[in-house]
Amino acid sequence: MQTLSSLYFASSNKNKFEEARSILSEFGISLKFFKCGLEEIQAKSLEEIAVHKASQAYLLCSKAVIVEDDGLFIKALMGFPGPYSSFVFDTIGNKGILKLLSKQRSAIFRSIIAYCEKKQDVMMFDGDVQGKISTKLQGKRWGFDPIFIPQGETLTYSQLKNKNLISHRYLALKKFANWYLHKQISIDR
Amino acid sequence: MQTLSSLYFASSNKNKFEEARSILSEFGISLKFFKCGLEEIQAKSLEEIAVHKASQAYLLCSKAVIVEDDGLFIKALMGFPGPYSSFVFDTIGNKGILKLLSKQRSAIFRSIIAYCEKKQDVMMFDGDVQGKISTKLQGKRWGFDPIFIPQGETLTYSQLKNKNLISHRYLALKKFANWYLHKQISIDR
Repeated sequence: MQTLSSLYFASSNKNKFEEARSILSEFGISLKFFKCGLEEIQAKSLEEIAVHKASQAYLLCSKAVIVEDDGLFIKALMGFPGPYSSFVFDTIGNKGILKLLSKQRSAIFRSIIAYCEKKQDVMMFDGDVQGKISTKLQGKRWGFDPIFIPQGETLTYSQLKNKNLISHRYLALKKFANWYLHKQISIDR
Repeated sequence: MQTLSSLYFASSNKNKFEEARSILSEFGISLKFFKCGLEEIQAKSLEEIAVHKASQAYLLCSKAVIVEDDGLFIKALMGFPGPYSSFVFDTIGNKGILKLLSKQRSAIFRSIIAYCEKKQDVMMFDGDVQGKISTKLQGKRWGFDPIFIPQGETLTYSQLKNKNLISHRYLALKKFANWYLHKQISIDR
Protein backbone atom coordinates (compact mmCIF):
# COMPACT_ATOMS: atom_id res chain seq x y z
CA MET A 1 0.00 0.00 0.00
CA GLN A 2 1.28 3.44 -0.84
CA THR A 3 2.11 5.94 1.88
CA LEU A 4 1.23 9.51 1.05
CA SER A 5 3.63 12.20 2.17
CA SER A 6 2.33 15.09 4.29
CA LEU A 7 0.25 17.64 2.46
CA TYR A 8 -0.52 21.07 3.86
CA PHE A 9 -3.35 23.52 3.16
CA ALA A 10 -2.15 27.10 3.64
CA SER A 11 -4.81 29.68 4.48
CA SER A 12 -6.00 32.08 7.12
CA ASN A 13 -9.52 30.67 6.69
CA LYS A 14 -10.31 27.65 8.85
CA ASN A 15 -13.67 27.10 7.11
CA LYS A 16 -11.98 26.65 3.75
CA PHE A 17 -9.53 24.22 5.27
CA GLU A 18 -12.30 22.18 6.91
CA GLU A 19 -14.13 21.84 3.59
CA ALA A 20 -10.97 20.88 1.74
CA ARG A 21 -10.00 18.38 4.45
CA SER A 22 -13.43 16.75 4.33
CA ILE A 23 -13.43 16.56 0.50
CA LEU A 24 -9.88 15.19 0.20
CA SER A 25 -10.43 12.59 2.92
CA GLU A 26 -12.95 10.94 0.56
CA PHE A 27 -10.03 10.40 -1.81
CA GLY A 28 -7.85 9.00 0.98
CA ILE A 29 -5.73 12.14 1.17
CA SER A 30 -4.99 13.54 4.60
CA LEU A 31 -4.63 17.31 4.86
CA LYS A 32 -2.94 19.40 7.56
CA PHE A 33 -3.68 23.05 8.31
CA PHE A 34 -0.88 25.59 7.84
CA LYS A 35 -2.42 28.78 9.17
CA CYS A 36 -0.89 31.88 7.64
CA GLY A 37 -1.74 35.15 5.92
CA LEU A 38 -0.61 35.22 2.29
CA GLU A 39 -0.12 38.35 0.21
CA GLU A 40 -2.59 38.61 -2.67
CA ILE A 41 -1.69 40.51 -5.81
CA GLN A 42 -4.37 42.65 -7.49
CA ALA A 43 -4.71 40.44 -10.53
CA LYS A 44 -7.54 40.04 -12.98
CA SER A 45 -7.54 36.27 -12.68
CA LEU A 46 -7.74 33.86 -9.77
CA GLU A 47 -4.96 31.85 -11.42
CA GLU A 48 -2.38 34.62 -11.07
CA ILE A 49 -3.34 35.16 -7.43
CA ALA A 50 -3.24 31.42 -6.68
CA VAL A 51 0.19 30.90 -8.26
CA HIS A 52 1.59 33.79 -6.26
CA LYS A 53 0.04 32.50 -3.02
CA ALA A 54 1.24 28.92 -3.58
CA SER A 55 4.85 29.99 -4.15
CA GLN A 56 4.70 32.13 -1.03
CA ALA A 57 3.12 29.35 1.03
CA TYR A 58 5.86 26.97 -0.04
CA LEU A 59 8.53 29.48 1.01
CA LEU A 60 6.88 29.71 4.43
CA CYS A 61 6.27 26.04 5.17
CA SER A 62 8.90 24.29 2.98
CA LYS A 63 6.60 21.31 2.47
CA ALA A 64 4.23 20.18 -0.27
CA VAL A 65 1.35 22.62 0.05
CA ILE A 66 -1.93 23.59 -1.61
CA VAL A 67 -3.70 26.92 -1.49
CA GLU A 68 -7.12 27.83 -2.80
CA ASP A 69 -8.38 31.01 -4.33
CA ASP A 70 -12.02 31.26 -5.23
CA GLY A 71 -14.32 33.93 -6.53
CA LEU A 72 -17.90 34.62 -7.44
CA PHE A 73 -18.31 36.13 -10.92
CA ILE A 74 -21.67 37.82 -11.49
CA LYS A 75 -22.51 38.29 -15.15
CA ALA A 76 -24.70 41.40 -14.84
CA LEU A 77 -21.92 43.08 -12.81
CA MET A 78 -19.13 42.43 -15.34
CA GLY A 79 -17.63 39.66 -13.22
CA PHE A 80 -17.81 41.54 -9.91
CA PRO A 81 -16.72 40.65 -7.22
CA GLY A 82 -14.46 38.09 -8.96
CA PRO A 83 -10.85 38.16 -7.73
CA TYR A 84 -11.81 40.63 -4.99
CA SER A 85 -14.48 38.42 -3.43
CA SER A 86 -12.99 38.48 0.10
CA PHE A 87 -12.74 42.26 0.20
CA VAL A 88 -16.25 42.69 -1.16
CA PHE A 89 -17.62 40.17 1.33
CA ASP A 90 -15.92 42.06 4.19
CA THR A 91 -17.29 45.44 3.08
CA ILE A 92 -20.66 45.43 1.28
CA GLY A 93 -21.33 41.75 2.07
CA ASN A 94 -24.12 39.57 0.74
CA LYS A 95 -26.71 42.26 1.42
CA GLY A 96 -24.79 44.67 -0.79
CA ILE A 97 -24.63 42.15 -3.62
CA LEU A 98 -28.39 41.54 -3.40
CA LYS A 99 -29.00 45.31 -3.65
CA LEU A 100 -26.98 45.50 -6.86
CA LEU A 101 -28.99 42.93 -8.78
CA SER A 102 -32.35 42.92 -10.49
CA LYS A 103 -33.60 40.40 -13.09
CA GLN A 104 -30.34 39.09 -14.56
CA ARG A 105 -28.83 36.99 -11.73
CA SER A 106 -26.58 34.38 -13.34
CA ALA A 107 -23.15 33.80 -11.83
CA ILE A 108 -20.22 31.41 -11.76
CA PHE A 109 -18.49 30.26 -8.60
CA ARG A 110 -14.90 29.38 -9.47
CA SER A 111 -12.14 27.72 -7.46
CA ILE A 112 -8.46 27.36 -8.22
CA ILE A 113 -6.35 24.89 -6.27
CA ALA A 114 -2.64 25.56 -6.62
CA TYR A 115 -0.08 22.97 -5.51
CA CYS A 116 3.59 23.70 -4.88
CA GLU A 117 6.34 21.39 -3.75
CA LYS A 118 9.29 23.27 -5.18
CA LYS A 119 9.95 26.99 -5.50
CA GLN A 120 8.59 28.36 -8.82
CA ASP A 121 6.91 25.06 -9.66
CA VAL A 122 3.13 25.32 -9.31
CA MET A 123 0.37 23.06 -10.64
CA MET A 124 -3.19 24.36 -10.92
CA PHE A 125 -6.63 22.74 -10.96
CA ASP A 126 -9.87 24.59 -11.58
CA GLY A 127 -13.51 24.00 -10.75
CA ASP A 128 -16.46 26.04 -12.08
CA VAL A 129 -20.08 25.86 -11.03
CA GLN A 130 -22.71 27.77 -12.98
CA GLY A 131 -25.65 29.12 -11.00
CA LYS A 132 -27.54 32.21 -9.96
CA ILE A 133 -27.78 34.66 -7.09
CA SER A 134 -30.81 34.18 -4.85
CA THR A 135 -33.20 37.08 -4.23
CA LYS A 136 -32.62 36.93 -0.46
CA LEU A 137 -30.22 35.39 2.05
CA GLN A 138 -31.04 31.69 2.50
CA GLY A 139 -29.24 29.59 5.09
CA LYS A 140 -26.42 30.40 7.43
CA ARG A 141 -23.13 29.04 6.12
CA TRP A 142 -20.20 31.40 5.56
CA GLY A 143 -19.13 33.52 2.60
CA PHE A 144 -21.40 33.81 -0.42
CA ASP A 145 -22.97 30.40 0.31
CA PRO A 146 -26.31 31.89 1.45
CA ILE A 147 -26.86 33.66 -1.89
CA PHE A 148 -25.52 31.18 -4.47
CA ILE A 149 -27.90 28.62 -6.03
CA PRO A 150 -26.11 26.08 -8.28
CA GLN A 151 -27.73 25.33 -11.65
CA GLY A 152 -30.40 22.62 -11.40
CA GLU A 153 -31.00 23.28 -7.69
CA THR A 154 -33.56 25.40 -5.85
CA LEU A 155 -31.54 25.79 -2.65
CA THR A 156 -28.40 27.80 -1.92
CA TYR A 157 -25.00 26.29 -1.10
CA SER A 158 -25.82 27.05 2.56
CA GLN A 159 -28.99 24.98 2.44
CA LEU A 160 -27.69 22.06 0.38
CA LYS A 161 -26.60 19.10 2.46
CA ASN A 162 -24.48 17.78 -0.39
CA LYS A 163 -22.60 21.03 -1.12
CA ASN A 164 -19.25 19.27 -0.68
CA LEU A 165 -20.16 16.79 -3.44
CA ILE A 166 -21.08 19.36 -6.07
CA SER A 167 -19.28 22.62 -5.24
CA HIS A 168 -16.64 24.48 -7.28
CA ARG A 169 -14.18 23.66 -4.49
CA TYR A 170 -15.07 19.96 -4.76
CA LEU A 171 -14.55 19.97 -8.55
CA ALA A 172 -11.13 21.60 -8.31
CA LEU A 173 -10.04 19.34 -5.44
CA LYS A 174 -11.24 16.24 -7.31
CA LYS A 175 -9.02 17.18 -10.28
CA PHE A 176 -6.16 17.79 -7.90
CA ALA A 177 -6.73 14.49 -6.04
CA ASN A 178 -6.72 12.44 -9.25
CA TRP A 179 -3.45 14.01 -10.32
CA TYR A 180 -1.89 13.81 -6.87
CA LEU A 181 -2.74 10.15 -6.27
CA HIS A 182 -1.47 9.19 -9.71
CA LYS A 183 1.72 11.12 -9.06
CA GLN A 184 2.25 9.31 -5.74
CA ILE A 185 1.74 5.93 -7.42
CA SER A 186 4.33 6.88 -10.05
CA ILE A 187 6.80 7.80 -7.32
CA ASP A 188 6.11 4.54 -5.42
CA ARG A 189 6.81 2.36 -8.45
CA MET B 1 17.52 80.23 -11.45
CA GLN B 2 17.30 76.56 -10.68
CA THR B 3 16.83 73.97 -13.41
CA LEU B 4 14.57 71.12 -12.50
CA SER B 5 15.51 67.68 -13.75
CA SER B 6 12.97 65.64 -15.73
CA LEU B 7 10.12 64.18 -13.74
CA TYR B 8 7.86 61.43 -15.03
CA PHE B 9 4.30 60.41 -14.10
CA ALA B 10 3.83 56.66 -14.60
CA SER B 11 0.28 55.48 -15.23
CA SER B 12 -2.01 53.85 -17.74
CA ASN B 13 -4.54 56.62 -17.10
CA LYS B 14 -4.10 59.73 -19.25
CA ASN B 15 -6.79 61.63 -17.30
CA LYS B 16 -4.85 61.27 -14.06
CA PHE B 17 -1.68 62.45 -15.77
CA GLU B 18 -3.43 65.50 -17.25
CA GLU B 19 -4.72 66.55 -13.84
CA ALA B 20 -1.33 66.02 -12.21
CA ARG B 21 0.42 67.92 -15.02
CA SER B 22 -1.97 70.84 -14.70
CA ILE B 23 -1.62 70.97 -10.90
CA LEU B 24 2.18 70.69 -10.83
CA SER B 25 2.62 73.31 -13.55
CA GLU B 26 1.20 75.84 -11.05
CA PHE B 27 4.23 75.06 -8.89
CA GLY B 28 6.60 75.42 -11.83
CA ILE B 29 7.17 71.68 -12.12
CA SER B 30 6.98 70.15 -15.57
CA LEU B 31 5.70 66.59 -15.80
CA LYS B 32 6.14 64.02 -18.57
CA PHE B 33 3.86 61.05 -19.21
CA PHE B 34 5.34 57.56 -18.89
CA LYS B 35 2.50 55.33 -20.09
CA CYS B 36 2.66 51.84 -18.59
CA GLY B 37 0.60 49.23 -16.77
CA LEU B 38 1.84 48.65 -13.24
CA GLU B 39 1.10 45.58 -11.14
CA GLU B 40 -1.04 46.34 -8.10
CA ILE B 41 -0.83 44.20 -4.99
CA GLN B 42 -4.05 43.39 -3.11
CA ALA B 43 -3.21 45.48 -0.09
CA LYS B 44 -5.44 46.99 2.55
CA SER B 45 -3.86 50.43 2.18
CA LEU B 46 -3.20 52.74 -0.75
CA GLU B 47 0.28 53.35 0.68
CA GLU B 48 1.38 49.74 0.20
CA ILE B 49 0.06 49.72 -3.36
CA ALA B 50 1.69 53.07 -4.16
CA VAL B 51 5.13 52.05 -2.82
CA HIS B 52 5.02 48.87 -4.86
CA LYS B 53 3.94 50.75 -8.01
CA ALA B 54 6.59 53.46 -7.60
CA SER B 55 9.43 50.94 -7.25
CA GLN B 56 8.17 49.11 -10.31
CA ALA B 57 7.81 52.32 -12.32
CA TYR B 58 11.37 53.30 -11.47
CA LEU B 59 12.64 49.91 -12.65
CA LEU B 60 10.82 50.46 -15.95
CA CYS B 61 11.79 54.05 -16.71
CA SER B 62 15.06 54.48 -14.72
CA LYS B 63 14.28 58.15 -14.11
CA ALA B 64 12.79 60.15 -11.25
CA VAL B 65 9.14 59.18 -11.32
CA ILE B 66 5.90 59.67 -9.44
CA VAL B 67 2.86 57.42 -9.38
CA GLU B 68 -0.52 58.03 -7.85
CA ASP B 69 -2.92 55.67 -6.19
CA ASP B 70 -6.25 56.99 -5.04
CA GLY B 71 -9.38 55.54 -3.56
CA LEU B 72 -12.85 56.42 -2.41
CA PHE B 73 -13.63 55.18 1.12
CA ILE B 74 -17.35 55.08 1.92
CA LYS B 75 -18.06 54.97 5.64
CA ALA B 76 -21.37 53.08 5.51
CA LEU B 77 -19.73 50.42 3.33
CA MET B 78 -16.77 49.77 5.66
CA GLY B 79 -14.37 51.66 3.42
CA PHE B 80 -15.55 50.10 0.14
CA PRO B 81 -14.37 50.47 -2.62
CA GLY B 82 -11.11 51.80 -1.06
CA PRO B 83 -7.96 50.22 -2.52
CA TYR B 84 -10.06 48.43 -5.17
CA SER B 85 -11.63 51.58 -6.59
CA SER B 86 -10.55 50.95 -10.20
CA PHE B 87 -11.94 47.42 -10.26
CA VAL B 88 -15.21 48.52 -8.67
CA PHE B 89 -15.53 51.40 -11.11
CA ASP B 90 -14.99 49.02 -14.04
CA THR B 91 -17.59 46.53 -12.79
CA ILE B 92 -20.51 47.95 -10.78
CA GLY B 93 -19.59 51.57 -11.57
CA ASN B 94 -21.10 54.72 -10.10
CA LYS B 95 -24.63 53.40 -10.57
CA GLY B 96 -23.76 50.36 -8.45
CA ILE B 97 -22.37 52.54 -5.67
CA LEU B 98 -25.51 54.69 -5.66
CA LYS B 99 -27.66 51.55 -5.32
CA LEU B 100 -25.70 50.46 -2.25
CA LEU B 101 -26.29 53.61 -0.23
CA SER B 102 -29.23 55.02 1.69
CA LYS B 103 -29.10 57.80 4.33
CA GLN B 104 -25.52 57.59 5.57
CA ARG B 105 -23.42 58.85 2.62
CA SER B 106 -20.19 60.25 4.05
CA ALA B 107 -16.95 59.33 2.29
CA ILE B 108 -13.28 60.24 2.02
CA PHE B 109 -11.43 60.59 -1.27
CA ARG B 110 -7.77 59.86 -0.65
CA SER B 111 -4.70 60.21 -2.86
CA ILE B 112 -1.17 58.94 -2.35
CA ILE B 113 1.65 60.30 -4.47
CA ALA B 114 4.75 58.12 -4.36
CA TYR B 115 8.08 59.37 -5.67
CA CYS B 116 11.03 57.17 -6.55
CA GLU B 117 14.43 58.12 -7.90
CA LYS B 118 16.38 55.12 -6.63
CA LYS B 119 15.42 51.51 -6.29
CA GLN B 120 13.83 50.80 -2.86
CA ASP B 121 13.78 54.49 -1.99
CA VAL B 122 10.24 55.81 -2.08
CA MET B 123 8.79 59.01 -0.60
CA MET B 124 5.04 59.36 -0.06
CA PHE B 125 2.65 62.30 0.18
CA ASP B 126 -1.04 62.01 1.05
CA GLY B 127 -4.13 64.09 0.45
CA ASP B 128 -7.57 63.50 2.00
CA VAL B 129 -10.84 65.22 1.18
CA GLN B 130 -13.92 64.59 3.33
CA GLY B 131 -17.25 64.65 1.57
CA LYS B 132 -20.33 62.67 0.70
CA ILE B 133 -21.79 60.61 -2.11
CA SER B 134 -24.47 62.36 -4.14
CA THR B 135 -27.91 60.76 -4.58
CA LYS B 136 -27.56 60.71 -8.37
CA LEU B 137 -24.92 61.13 -11.05
CA GLN B 138 -24.10 64.82 -11.50
CA GLY B 139 -21.73 65.99 -14.24
CA LYS B 140 -19.68 64.11 -16.74
CA ARG B 141 -16.08 63.92 -15.68
CA TRP B 142 -14.38 60.52 -15.28
CA GLY B 143 -14.14 58.09 -12.38
CA PHE B 144 -16.10 58.75 -9.20
CA ASP B 145 -16.11 62.51 -9.87
CA PRO B 146 -19.84 62.61 -10.78
CA ILE B 147 -20.87 61.20 -7.37
CA PHE B 148 -18.43 62.84 -4.92
CA ILE B 149 -19.38 66.13 -3.25
CA PRO B 150 -16.55 67.64 -1.16
CA GLN B 151 -17.47 68.97 2.29
CA GLY B 152 -18.72 72.56 2.17
CA GLU B 153 -19.80 72.26 -1.48
CA THR B 154 -23.13 71.46 -3.11
CA LEU B 155 -21.68 70.30 -6.42
CA THR B 156 -19.76 67.14 -7.34
CA TYR B 157 -16.10 67.07 -8.39
CA SER B 158 -17.41 66.80 -11.97
CA GLN B 159 -19.37 70.01 -11.68
CA LEU B 160 -16.82 72.07 -9.76
CA LYS B 161 -14.70 74.30 -11.95
CA ASN B 162 -12.04 74.56 -9.25
CA LYS B 163 -11.68 70.82 -8.60
CA ASN B 164 -7.95 70.96 -9.27
CA LEU B 165 -7.53 73.58 -6.52
CA ILE B 166 -9.28 71.59 -3.78
CA SER B 167 -9.12 67.88 -4.68
CA HIS B 168 -7.40 65.06 -2.79
CA ARG B 169 -4.99 64.79 -5.75
CA TYR B 170 -4.20 68.52 -5.47
CA LEU B 171 -3.50 68.23 -1.72
CA ALA B 172 -1.12 65.29 -2.18
CA LEU B 173 0.64 66.93 -5.14
CA LYS B 174 1.01 70.21 -3.22
CA LYS B 175 2.79 68.36 -0.39
CA PHE B 176 4.97 66.63 -2.95
CA ALA B 177 5.74 69.88 -4.82
CA ASN B 178 6.83 71.70 -1.65
CA TRP B 179 9.19 68.86 -0.77
CA TYR B 180 10.46 68.42 -4.33
CA LEU B 181 11.22 72.10 -4.92
CA HIS B 182 13.00 72.38 -1.59
CA LYS B 183 15.02 69.28 -2.43
CA GLN B 184 16.04 70.75 -5.79
CA ILE B 185 17.13 74.01 -4.14
CA SER B 186 19.24 72.02 -1.67
CA ILE B 187 20.90 70.17 -4.55
CA ASP B 188 21.52 73.41 -6.47
CA ARG B 189 23.27 75.10 -3.52
